[in-house]
Amino acid sequence: MHRTKVRVSEDALDANETIARANREDFDRAGVAVVNLMSAPGAGKTTLLERGLEGLRSPRVGVLEGDVQGSLDADRLAGLHIPVTQLNTDSGFGGECHLDANMVRSALPALPLDEIDLLIVENVGNLVCPAEFRIGEDVKAMIASVAEGEDKPLKYPLMFRSCEMVVVNKIDLLPHVDFDMDRFLANLDAVNPGVASMRVSARTGEGIDGWRAWLAGIPERAAAPA
Amino acid sequence: MHRTKVRVSEDALDANETIARANREDFDRAGVAVVNLMSAPGAGKTTLLERGLEGLRSPRVGVLEGDVQGSLDADRLAGLHIPVTQLNTDSGFGGECHLDANMVRSALPALPLDEIDLLIVENVGNLVCPAEFRIGEDVKAMIASVAEGEDKPLKYPLMFRSCEMVVVNKIDLLPHVDFDMDRFLANLDAVNPGVASMRVSARTGEGIDGWRAWLAGIPERAAAPA
Repeated sequence: MHRTKVRVSEDALDANETIARANREDFDRAGVAVVNLMSAPGAGKTTLLERGLEGLRSPRVGVLEGDVQGSLDADRLAGLHIPVTQLNTDSGFGGECHLDANMVRSALPALPLDEIDLLIVENVGNLVCPAEFRIGEDVKAMIASVAEGEDKPLKYPLMFRSCEMVVVNKIDLLPHVDFDMDRFLANLDAVNPGVASMRVSARTGEGIDGWRAWLAGIPERAAAPA
Repeated sequence: MHRTKVRVSEDALDANETIARANREDFDRAGVAVVNLMSAPGAGKTTLLERGLEGLRSPRVGVLEGDVQGSLDADRLAGLHIPVTQLNTDSGFGGECHLDANMVRSALPALPLDEIDLLIVENVGNLVCPAEFRIGEDVKAMIASVAEGEDKPLKYPLMFRSCEMVVVNKIDLLPHVDFDMDRFLANLDAVNPGVASMRVSARTGEGIDGWRAWLAGIPERAAAPA
């Protein structure tokens, strides 16, 4: 007798996968590419978005700002005159430390998907949990600040392993901090061999052209056959 | 008819409180004061412990190192010749982003409580969840790096509100970053009015004497009647 088994799973991460796929289908229908942008607190996500999106006309970009509380980052992006949607995670006990697929899904009605080609999701500042929850993105990227130290890939391997782009920010501080770039890149390569990386300074503007070009190229790369 | 109601709670945070109290009783029996040291990744917890504990003979200090993975920080502290116990949180799916009372309890058998007066618990680098879980500590302290920006108290209010000491580290970088100390202190005061703070540089040594004195004074302050 032939039997087919269906394993019923109630794991929270499985539920997240299901909702992430639903998000993905909605994004696909609207023709929107999505990047999940992550980092530790204060690594420079918002500043890099300010600099990278300034003057960018194509693709049309929207931002979903994830924060435990407040709308400081969304306010900062107001000057860019692009659609910015704030998503706060503090409805839980002390605030969720990450975005998950369901939180992003709850924001979908507020997102003008028909008016954008690229949605940038700025996750909660945290190097652990955001890497564990897919949200329906095409690509995961992270920002690491040289002020955080060269050991971070080894201490938060899942985060560095989950990303397709690692942006090393605040390189203007290199003369003033104990950060060995070669060692950082070796640590990065140890947890995510061959991953793309770039070096930028949101403060001085160094490398921002490359960052802007990378952002602008996401929709085309997402549409290309794998 | 007189009835007494007992509300049965199965909340995870309630269970954590119960275990935190059990930890607290064990620490009290052993005469050990406990500080829960928290920060974002790369704010300088380990370096500040290296500097602050160097040459400190009294009180006798032990360290419990919380990390998602690896023992890089514990290895760095080996030169201090004090008891250091490593606690890794990666037994979960992608690693827990914080220490809770039960994790600390699981480490108790490995801690030489009879040989120390002060236990420093270095939490996982994260500005959200560590603030939500009591572990049986006497005092919570956090380290904020000037490289992270002056807005952090407003974005992670629970963390800044939960602490009795906020150490502002990396002040040697002040000439090189956009960080308004007065605005940071005003933001801090907005979420935790009157909280104690100090400014230090683990790199140059500025303020380290005060940091060492604060650490050394924890057992005496913990023993004083409230």
